[in-house]
Amino acid sequence: MGRDSPDRCLIMVPGPTNVPSRVLRAMMKPMISHRGPEFRTLYRGILENLRYLFQTEGEVFVLTASGTGGVECAVSNLVNPGDKVLIPVFGLFSERMREKIARRGGVPVEVKLDYGEAPTADQIERMLELEKDVKVIAIVYNETSTGVTVRDLPEIGRIAKERGILLLVDAVSILGGDKLPVDEWNVDVCVAGSQKCLACPPGLSLISVSERAWRRIERTERPFYYDLVAMKSFRERWETPFTPAIPLFYALDEALKIIREEGLEKRFERHRVCSEAFYRAVEALGLEVFPRRGVRSNTVIAFKKPAGVDGAEVRRLMRERYKVVIAGGAGKVRDLIFRIGCMGAVSSPDVIRTVSALENALADVGYPVEAGAGVEAAKSVLF
Amino acid sequence: MGRDSPDRCLIMVPGPTNVPSRVLRAMMKPMISHRGPEFRTLYRGILENLRYLFQTEGEVFVLTASGTGGVECAVSNLVNPGDKVLIPVFGLFSERMREKIARRGGVPVEVKLDYGEAPTADQIERMLELEKDVKVIAIVYNETSTGVTVRDLPEIGRIAKERGILLLVDAVSILGGDKLPVDEWNVDVCVAGSQKCLACPPGLSLISVSERAWRRIERTERPFYYDLVAMKSFRERWETPFTPAIPLFYALDEALKIIREEGLEKRFERHRVCSEAFYRAVEALGLEVFPRRGVRSNTVIAFKKPAGVDGAEVRRLMRERYKVVIAGGAGKVRDLIFRIGCMGAVSSPDVIRTVSALENALADVGYPVEAGAGVEAAKSVLF
Repeated sequence: MGRDSPDRCLIMVPGPTNVPSRVLRAMMKPMISHRGPEFRTLYRGILENLRYLFQTEGEVFVLTASGTGGVECAVSNLVNPGDKVLIPVFGLFSERMREKIARRGGVPVEVKLDYGEAPTADQIERMLELEKDVKVIAIVYNETSTGVTVRDLPEIGRIAKERGILLLVDAVSILGGDKLPVDEWNVDVCVAGSQKCLACPPGLSLISVSERAWRRIERTERPFYYDLVAMKSFRERWETPFTPAIPLFYALDEALKIIREEGLEKRFERHRVCSEAFYRAVEALGLEVFPRRGVRSNTVIAFKKPAGVDGAEVRRLMRERYKVVIAGGAGKVRDLIFRIGCMGAVSSPDVIRTVSALENALADVGYPVEAGAGVEAAKSVLF
Repeated sequence: MGRDSPDRCLIMVPGPTNVPSRVLRAMMKPMISHRGPEFRTLYRGILENLRYLFQTEGEVFVLTASGTGGVECAVSNLVNPGDKVLIPVFGLFSERMREKIARRGGVPVEVKLDYGEAPTADQIERMLELEKDVKVIAIVYNETSTGVTVRDLPEIGRIAKERGILLLVDAVSILGGDKLPVDEWNVDVCVAGSQKCLACPPGLSLISVSERAWRRIERTERPFYYDLVAMKSFRERWETPFTPAIPLFYALDEALKIIREEGLEKRFERHRVCSEAFYRAVEALGLEVFPRRGVRSNTVIAFKKPAGVDGAEVRRLMRERYKVVIAGGAGKVRDLIFRIGCMGAVSSPDVIRTVSALENALADVGYPVEAGAGVEAAKSVLF
């Protein structure tokens, strides 16, 4: 059932991603009590490696919930009803974050951008001049729906810190795949998912919390399951307040060990090179990358579906005939783009296999591609 | 790493429980996209078997969160700020439910009982005479902290239905181990956990929703991750709104197949017989069962720690010397009782091994036990 069996599809969607056998096998360890010594040793090791991953001296936690639950947890802990939260909206996941803020009773102050764009530090600063009493800036660092990364995040962190505003970052689809030193960049609460750049199965959220953030969190009315103060108090004895998803904790432990073995810098570089190969290949096939240069993500590759091509059919052929699964669009650009996850365990062979499947499927539907042009372009970056 | 390896502890806490190898192995299946055909087939099969488990024609859902998250989800969907919720409080988990209601802004109307007691239909009815405008009755069907089951639940369901009040049931530690036909008993929203009587790993909540409940749910302000209306709309195409914990879905699928193969009636009877064996054994050892007769649980066995015995030491000896893990108390009775999980895959050999370990550990700390008395008493029930 491993990655190499003949009928096995390569999963190149922007999460969940392919999980190495080492990580899958870790889930077979026997069940343990979450109030016993084995679990405490496990959780302690996970948190130590999470601090490395987040590059933080602050507190880190694992929540049994998918990324959306983790982001809602962060919002619920930082935002009280009536609080103004500045939020750039430039894709489906920033729309969702705005919705979570609104449902929490917060007042979203929007910086509205086109899909494919990223907010800049200047835009944030101008909005802060107009709107007083902003309590939190909430940023989706990597918009999974459009393949855009907010490259100004370090500068936005400086602005937030200078003004005494907390910075909440949704890094679900980027942590572990691109630079994000949360302490250095003044990120107060950062949320990631297990199933993206960590090459771990879905079901866990990872959350970092700065010292500065606690003073606010202690004064918010927190929902029960998301209560970070309770998580902190249980963390002191290396436990979680509620029963954790033990097999996923085993998997995360193994995935984090793999990350430490590789090292963050090498891992980021691998993602960068693979993404560059994807972008070159897409362009060599005459397709248009969706985001403008300068904000393109190293973890999610978004490009336009050529006019007249049936995108669903291309993806069906890729899946059924060539055994590679990529994603269509999401939100407003659902039918306009394709998206490839360039995450986690992504490697040169994965890139070549995916580009080759894309070339073939496009040819199958009658779209004119120069045979091998995409693969050659990818190779020129990879080798 | 299976259940039979020599150093392997038997996990007899009230969740997580021992997971059969078939279920563990299911988690090794390859990662899939949660927006693809494989996932839809998987989820559809799970939901069909969940309807069998809940004995309902209503909607059922799987939420990636532990039981506490599932119960909070139910509360958030049924209770608006200001709503009165009648809640009997008779242990840690009913205290937690009360706390969730309060944090949601609801007004908990308490029926306070001693630990070890269970609310009766009469008590509920009397409280409803005193308190007008109760919108929801919230019941913990099986108090995991005290080993108590609310045997009047069917009658409470009739009362709720007659008065047009919704009935929310926390069945986290009992569904699959004892009778709970949610349609027949007029349970409007029922929540269970994957890691208890289903013999599946922790990390998923299972939720059933009656037709009647939808009319209320549609009018509440629901948090994003817990939104049952969104879950229903995605369910129509056999998807979840957010990335599900795929390996745990594989495990749940397998665990539910095992349940159908055994059949609910046989499964309930197995739990009943094993629990009866535990109760007889405990009494044969001269120990006192914690709850009174008539409300004792078939899934959680709670009994008093004998005076003068160091409970932590008994449990340490059981774990380290005899390889059986049981739990101490929780909440107010933390240091006063022991608890044994009699759940999921529990079998005669598990009962014998656990009782034998308990006997031996008690003897080791100098508590006078008649050697073999517990095991003999258990055997007389089991064989």
